[in-house]
Amino acid sequence: MKKRLIFAAFFMCTIMANAQTYLDPTAPLEDRVQDALRRMTLHEKFKVLHAQSKFTSAGVPRLGIRQLNMDDGPHGVREELAWNSWGTAQWTNDSIVAFPSLTCLAATWNRELSARYGHVLSEEFAFRGKDVLLGPGVNIARTPLNGRAFEYMGEDPLLAGEMVVPYIQAAQRNGVACCLKHFVLNDQETDRFGVNVNVSERALHELYLAPYKRAVEKAHVWAIMASYNYYKGVHCCQNNELLNRVLKHDWKWDGAVISDWGGATDTRQAATGGLDIEMGTFTDGKIKEAEFGYNDYYLADKFEKLVKEGQIPMAVLNEKVSRVLRLIFRTSMNRQKAIGSQCSEAHYDACRSIGEEGIVMLKNRKSLLPLDLTKYKRVLVIGENAVRSLTQGGGSSELKTLRDTSPLEALRKLHTTDYAQGYESGRAIYERQEKIDANKQEQLREEALQKAKDADLIIFVGGLNKNYQQDCENSDRQSYDLPFGQNDLIANIIKQKPSNCPIVIVTFGGNAYATPWLPQVDALLHCWYLGSESGTSLANILTGKVNPSGKLPVTFAKRLEDYPYFRFGKRAYPGITGVKTEPNSAGEVPNSQVYYDEDIFVGYRGFEQNNVQPQFPFGFGLSYTTFKYGNLRRNGNRVSIDVTNIGSRKGKETVQLYVGRADKNSNRPRKELKDFAKIELAPGEQKTVTFDLNDDMFAYFSEQSHQWQHGKGKYNIYLASSSADEQNRIAYIKD
Amino acid sequence: MKKRLIFAAFFMCTIMANAQTYLDPTAPLEDRVQDALRRMTLHEKFKVLHAQSKFTSAGVPRLGIRQLNMDDGPHGVREELAWNSWGTAQWTNDSIVAFPSLTCLAATWNRELSARYGHVLSEEFAFRGKDVLLGPGVNIARTPLNGRAFEYMGEDPLLAGEMVVPYIQAAQRNGVACCLKHFVLNDQETDRFGVNVNVSERALHELYLAPYKRAVEKAHVWAIMASYNYYKGVHCCQNNELLNRVLKHDWKWDGAVISDWGGATDTRQAATGGLDIEMGTFTDGKIKEAEFGYNDYYLADKFEKLVKEGQIPMAVLNEKVSRVLRLIFRTSMNRQKAIGSQCSEAHYDACRSIGEEGIVMLKNRKSLLPLDLTKYKRVLVIGENAVRSLTQGGGSSELKTLRDTSPLEALRKLHTTDYAQGYESGRAIYERQEKIDANKQEQLREEALQKAKDADLIIFVGGLNKNYQQDCENSDRQSYDLPFGQNDLIANIIKQKPSNCPIVIVTFGGNAYATPWLPQVDALLHCWYLGSESGTSLANILTGKVNPSGKLPVTFAKRLEDYPYFRFGKRAYPGITGVKTEPNSAGEVPNSQVYYDEDIFVGYRGFEQNNVQPQFPFGFGLSYTTFKYGNLRRNGNRVSIDVTNIGSRKGKETVQLYVGRADKNSNRPRKELKDFAKIELAPGEQKTVTFDLNDDMFAYFSEQSHQWQHGKGKYNIYLASSSADEQNRIAYIKD
Repeated sequence: MKKRLIFAAFFMCTIMANAQTYLDPTAPLEDRVQDALRRMTLHEKFKVLHAQSKFTSAGVPRLGIRQLNMDDGPHGVREELAWNSWGTAQWTNDSIVAFPSLTCLAATWNRELSARYGHVLSEEFAFRGKDVLLGPGVNIARTPLNGRAFEYMGEDPLLAGEMVVPYIQAAQRNGVACCLKHFVLNDQETDRFGVNVNVSERALHELYLAPYKRAVEKAHVWAIMASYNYYKGVHCCQNNELLNRVLKHDWKWDGAVISDWGGATDTRQAATGGLDIEMGTFTDGKIKEAEFGYNDYYLADKFEKLVKEGQIPMAVLNEKVSRVLRLIFRTSMNRQKAIGSQCSEAHYDACRSIGEEGIVMLKNRKSLLPLDLTKYKRVLVIGENAVRSLTQGGGSSELKTLRDTSPLEALRKLHTTDYAQGYESGRAIYERQEKIDANKQEQLREEALQKAKDADLIIFVGGLNKNYQQDCENSDRQSYDLPFGQNDLIANIIKQKPSNCPIVIVTFGGNAYATPWLPQVDALLHCWYLGSESGTSLANILTGKVNPSGKLPVTFAKRLEDYPYFRFGKRAYPGITGVKTEPNSAGEVPNSQVYYDEDIFVGYRGFEQNNVQPQFPFGFGLSYTTFKYGNLRRNGNRVSIDVTNIGSRKGKETVQLYVGRADKNSNRPRKELKDFAKIELAPGEQKTVTFDLNDDMFAYFSEQSHQWQHGKGKYNIYLASSSADEQNRIAYIKD
Repeated sequence: MKKRLIFAAFFMCTIMANAQTYLDPTAPLEDRVQDALRRMTLHEKFKVLHAQSKFTSAGVPRLGIRQLNMDDGPHGVREELAWNSWGTAQWTNDSIVAFPSLTCLAATWNRELSARYGHVLSEEFAFRGKDVLLGPGVNIARTPLNGRAFEYMGEDPLLAGEMVVPYIQAAQRNGVACCLKHFVLNDQETDRFGVNVNVSERALHELYLAPYKRAVEKAHVWAIMASYNYYKGVHCCQNNELLNRVLKHDWKWDGAVISDWGGATDTRQAATGGLDIEMGTFTDGKIKEAEFGYNDYYLADKFEKLVKEGQIPMAVLNEKVSRVLRLIFRTSMNRQKAIGSQCSEAHYDACRSIGEEGIVMLKNRKSLLPLDLTKYKRVLVIGENAVRSLTQGGGSSELKTLRDTSPLEALRKLHTTDYAQGYESGRAIYERQEKIDANKQEQLREEALQKAKDADLIIFVGGLNKNYQQDCENSDRQSYDLPFGQNDLIANIIKQKPSNCPIVIVTFGGNAYATPWLPQVDALLHCWYLGSESGTSLANILTGKVNPSGKLPVTFAKRLEDYPYFRFGKRAYPGITGVKTEPNSAGEVPNSQVYYDEDIFVGYRGFEQNNVQPQFPFGFGLSYTTFKYGNLRRNGNRVSIDVTNIGSRKGKETVQLYVGRADKNSNRPRKELKDFAKIELAPGEQKTVTFDLNDDMFAYFSEQSHQWQHGKGKYNIYLASSSADEQNRIAYIKD
């Protein structure tokens, strides 16, 4: 051991002796950055500020400074693409593990699992030679129709922020940068390039910026992706107020802003607006670099010209290059970067565990679940999602997996199982829905209903599936209902099935949806997207091998109309066209305007403000055991509660801390999540959960002072099993 | 400094604490190999034994064991190719520095430059993410017609072996494996897949194997590429005698044998014949892996079947996998692997220096050179190679460079220079010569001759150019003459030019060639291929900025007929068809037979044996200064000589130690190179060069004992400026 240490030290000394400062891994980061900056030619500085291919940006080969290899996305490493097109590179070493969607991760409410997610995912990124992981995403779910909600972490800024921090920390410990996205207000896909978001400064800070701020302050995220949409009439990729003032100045963030692919539109605005690396501009199709390609990027030759003419100060250039160099030294030049691995057992284990803890049990009449399959002879699975790959589709987060386990496969390993597809969704196509054959659809439906007549147990596996206008980039859902006639199909199955045949509904999807058949079904599990171990995770929950512990990171409304924004009409979502505005400094005018009229009352904050009962509240999720809360007490700033497992199974429970102003008319939400703790309890076991109250939990953003303010006054503190659970409340005066 | 060391040690400890043995960079290599081997599944073991794409072989992604990225070639990193075709991947980050050809490196006789070559080249490989450098090559030049001679290091095994060792050591210090090629007897391109080489055991060991043995013993080369041709009726890629007996058993080599691309032809022979990694089989065109691709490689599924059936022992499999793992841990998994750089100033400097020292001045009448360009008004350059890219063409060693300097460009920087192309060679095409327009050719010739009439100085820049049937893989030269009518053109230029107009001939090319115009020209420089800094290197020699010091690594004969093999007819080269032979164990019969009838008398050994005067002898090269040898003496096993620079310029001289049997009829060569030393001397300076004689210098390979034998007897020791220089000779009795 001692000998090895000397050996190791010798190696490091050798490196140190030979290295110039910028190549010396033991030199302070800022020294390395400044040393490298000094050695670069003017032209080389511009070269690192933009793409050189679909997913890489250049380093400085002459100086031995490596490029940045970036890749989608938040749930797994995207397939290798060709250098300069969206086509596949046709490699055969790029099949990976698809991990559960981020909404699923949020539903675990388990910080340790988030760290595990970041660790295993970044190991796959490292092994694939990637430096920048384009994710995770923390845009706030203000509408269940948002096509990319499955890539985000729900409706609550604290949950999203707390859950994203360990993911980022773990990935960056492996030398893989996270590129947190999409900064900011990219909360819908409809007109994502053209919509201008109008939001109060308070809602911006309290909700939309909050998870980013947490990731910056607690996880020191190394890169942030600026979004397509406009804010105050300027694209977020070149938005001085958001990028320079808030992110870089106020938050003292030292990372690099990367544009969403094709999100930059103007040299002067991008250069002075805070963009550091421009990606995805102008390179669709077969354009040759020499003719019209990477040198024509806004931050390339055009920027160089303006700097040379003195129209943009050299300091602006050097500041950008410093940020890019910092990112390079932290990742591609990082001698401690993990080697990683791909499709290892540990990765599948993590995938399965995250999936299991993310599945939310929403209903379980007469404890039908967990299923004792020996009790049923004719088990019938209905629904396309029992067999369909849900790692494909959805846009940039689509994955090429080595192997996936489907729900039907996993169930058939446990029990003889009949199957009927029931409906057909067609292929997932990025920009349109493949036409569905009505005859075929009718035939599938009839087959399912026929089989339902003789079943002893029906498990319906449906939901969304990442097709166009569902959970899919570049389009929003068109309806709050399940697509492809599933509601009608479920209703008819219920009619056709024997009355003593129980029916379990299992749904996949990244969003809430309407459950009109809820009273007639025995059990309901919502699974988000579970990745490569989809079937196994689901089967383990269904059969009780694992006790469900997921809790909703979004509110499930009864009807779309119940969502807070809905009462403000189209102007609140998806926005309206025809509003006259002045062109911005780049001469651009937004195509549409959306007004976040519900202000800070998004999600459960809004349902409570409007006194609307949701179908399933934020933070809600059932278990196969029962947890009893009691003995809530406070000692100074410390609040505690005893939680006891009074059921007969080991289980996990997430205790949620909500804080709300007790005085009405304060224009504060009735309740806001401020902390949470997930604990595991054996049958009969009791644990005490303790939270420390701090100033931040009572603060609000003042539009008068443009700052966070101490929120003096009377509050209620809730320790609860969901946002709707007000049984354990204690008063608190903040002064 | 102390703080940094602690920091470094902490890092290493962290790695050590977490790592399994195979991932622990401080664990002994063999422990890592065995640990990894133990963890691999049976199927995974076969996966690492063959290609997964054109230039990569798989690692074990599940275990975090990286793949091997290989790339041509000896003179620079080849352009990135598509995953599964010979087409370009169309990347834009893969332009590199082309370094001089290996024959040029050999001509420097400078071991330090060889180390510098290996260092800078491997830095480019490392920066491009490559683990295995497919080179260098040390096949012996027995004919000047060999199409790949430019990739090798001349006709002498000691020179090739001594010069290749520092290259390999330097590259491997950077964590980049050399793959020494082409093992063995791949000394011609004609029928390279089908020719069976018949060679005496003695010549095999004394000449053809010798440089490999030196590279194994002195440089511990990590990989060796087995060649296409047959030896004793078995392809070298699966030749038990060569690979298992000689290389792995007798030489105790622990590296991995990689097949030349497509060199394997049979599972059982490849598996038991010593091949470790099979590359290039079956993947031309658009074959899909699923149909007929990498799993159909001889060392893939077919091998797995034989092992599972017990037809090939598991030990054979594990031995191969161990060798591959060793290569992986030494390169792609090597935490100390260099980051490298691409196109750095240091690389261009090395390129230029190697080129300058490799250029051989063969004639310099009346000290015409170095040129004082101010003396000439109308300087005329004639010849296509003054402007043609010589980094392209030639086969797998073709390079995509960032920038090259041509001779004409470099000369025009120094003096107003007129130019006439003189002849046209057409495009370099791998498998055929582009048709040349006779009218165009005549027109170019006329233009050159017209311009020659008014010139004050003519610099003709011609030679070979890597076209088909020149210095080009897969074909040999068809003539010993310069191609494209250059001899005729030069003769006519001499006739047309003013009588007081001097003419300098500059040739590029990897081989010797006929110089019928030699008496009529004033100066002759042979430049091999000089890479990216071609023009600058040449200009620096022409103008005397650098004093030439290159010496020939091959004999220049007056006529092709003078080469030792030639007197034995076609059977000695390029071989004959129609010889009946028994099929080998794979059922294969060679297409042709070549007989190395000249035996050990290759190159200068043969010229001397046959008493044939070469045009320019091996080891010959002129300088702008003069070196005087004197005071040769011996003290025990130590021989010394004083060398004095009696000219007026600083210069470098290579002192060559030859040993030869003094008694005739000993069937030993009159003289064999046994050591050399390159020294630099200021004008008037004297240095003493000393060599220590050792047993190996007198040994010969006995076909009776099949071993190297001490060569007792009377010898002459020569300390010489070329192989033809016998002025300084001393007798020696070896006992």
